[in-house]
Amino acid sequence: MARTAGSHAETTGPRVRAAAQRLIARHGYAAVSMRQIAAEVGVQAGALYLYTPDKQTLLFDLMRLHMEELLAACEALPEPCDPRAALAQFARFHIGYHIDRPEAVFIAYMELRNLSPENFAVIEGLRRRYEERLEAILRAGTAVGVFALPDLRLATRAIIAMLTGVTHWFRDMGPMGRDEVADQYAEMVLKTASAR
Amino acid sequence: MARTAGSHAETTGPRVRAAAQRLIARHGYAAVSMRQIAAEVGVQAGALYLYTPDKQTLLFDLMRLHMEELLAACEALPEPCDPRAALAQFARFHIGYHIDRPEAVFIAYMELRNLSPENFAVIEGLRRRYEERLEAILRAGTAVGVFALPDLRLATRAIIAMLTGVTHWFRDMGPMGRDEVADQYAEMVLKTASAR
Repeated sequence: MARTAGSHAETTGPRVRAAAQRLIARHGYAAVSMRQIAAEVGVQAGALYLYTPDKQTLLFDLMRLHMEELLAACEALPEPCDPRAALAQFARFHIGYHIDRPEAVFIAYMELRNLSPENFAVIEGLRRRYEERLEAILRAGTAVGVFALPDLRLATRAIIAMLTGVTHWFRDMGPMGRDEVADQYAEMVLKTASAR
Repeated sequence: MARTAGSHAETTGPRVRAAAQRLIARHGYAAVSMRQIAAEVGVQAGALYLYTPDKQTLLFDLMRLHMEELLAACEALPEPCDPRAALAQFARFHIGYHIDRPEAVFIAYMELRNLSPENFAVIEGLRRRYEERLEAILRAGTAVGVFALPDLRLATRAIIAMLTGVTHWFRDMGPMGRDEVADQYAEMVLKTASAR
């Protein structure tokens, strides 16, 4: 079958995003040029513009896809009725998902400053939707008295920050495996939320 | 009294570091030139080299001073014998110190990738010394049974990540004041560590 522009775009799009992610995570958005990204992909700079109109759109696509995939994976989880089981599941999910994607996580936090205001609003909206998954679990547990947290939004952000921090140091942990790390975080998060 | 090179350096050094911190936090280390930093300070590019030999040294100085000042402030705290009081104090201290320095915190995490290996080793050493302050509190509490944490190093990093996350969103919290935020974090951290 002849190679069409469409099928070409389908394979080149992911390669462009992968190259942009590597370079931006290494050097920062402002220091990376479209020319460098093209060289990393192995295409001419002009060819890059077949796949993305500009560097801002490329950054936005990276961050949007990261958040959309995270949300889709989270929304596909079963929904345990027991708030403690739901919270432990959320913690294990968040750890496992983020351990595998340190570059995407790094960019998701660090390059917010470089989004246009319209793009920032979209990413913030997706982030809020993800936070609301956790906040709903904390709310349900508080309603039945198994959790006690004076401010659910603050607690949501604190727990997500605790869990996401794993990407800073997981590679140093030596012999401790992913499952053991996830178990320890899940246990700590349950205590953090608990009504004692 | 005549202005000497020494006294000039004393006032220009902090101005150079403040300008570098603003620009690096905004654009990232790799995208900021010594020429831009000089322009921000209001001196000629050549004059900047009276105060720092190169951009790497400037970044290293920013990160080293941030960690040294944090350590000195932490080491100046009283040392309560009760591990729960010590942990609550550490949490409140960390929140208060970091809320005031979002740019320094941002750089401390984000620009590790741009340190030379020798400079990275120094910053990592300072960071470990700070983590050990918290780890010692957790160890003392575990020894007397008020805390229960299977891995103190993992718990130390998780708690520091939770607390440092406050710099990402504190400005959004609207009416919630610093003390209330610090109280809520201290309460969560006590629960995280507790033996139930």
